Amino acid sequence: LNNREITKILINTELAQFGDALLNFAYSTAVTQTSGHPQGVKVSDRILASAAVKAGLRKLLPRRVDRGDVANSVEALLGHAWLAKAISLDEIVNYLKPESLDPAENFCRLAALALSKLEK
Amino acid sequence: LNNREITKILINTELAQFGDALLNFAYSTAVTQTSGHPQGVKVSDRILASAAVKAGLRKLLPRRVDRGDVANSVEALLGHAWLAKAISLDEIVNYLKPESLDPAENFCRLAALALSKLEK
Repeated sequence: LNNREITKILINTELAQFGDALLNFAYSTAVTQTSGHPQGVKVSDRILASAAVKAGLRKLLPRRVDRGDVANSVEALLGHAWLAKAISLDEIVNYLKPESLDPAENFCRLAALALSKLEK
Repeated sequence: LNNREITKILINTELAQFGDALLNFAYSTAVTQTSGHPQGVKVSDRILASAAVKAGLRKLLPRRVDRGDVANSVEALLGHAWLAKAISLDEIVNYLKPESLDPAENFCRLAALALSKLEK
């Protein structure tokens, strides 16, 4: 995919809504497996927006977007990558497992992975 | 598992929170695959509570519970079954795909399946 096609994915709000369900489930699974007890956790827009900037997604987005749109771009990207079978649920969960000082770091590496798979 | 052990699962609120993320993602996937365009959808307590009653979960719950608790029991049951690898994500999604007149019907059949696997 070229940059223009990727931008179209990143600003797709339906994909973002699907990706929201995907990432909440994958993150809940990662936290459950790491901690050893079941948890349902939601990923915050603050963390996703920070990951989007670090992963270089921001520059593929239109100039005037708010933090919610930037956060949505990570959800849309992962939603698309999973639906297109470019990335598996297990892969996503494994990327979200490591404990790091900055919680956006795992989402950044995950977004960078998905982006590299779509750019191929 | 005996009835007492199953009741313990059904009233576990942490499992219900995990199961909430699981069912929202599975249902979003089912609706996305059936309709052909990405959607993120939440399963309502009304539908889950109706499914719980139809699937016979209600009689395994303490007498005094509200509708939210009854709905949670389906989420906790499926969350446990998935974490215990008694049921796969693909199986859950496939149960949620058929369009039926009563949207609780699919969740009822799914809950009955999970219950039968745990009772073994």
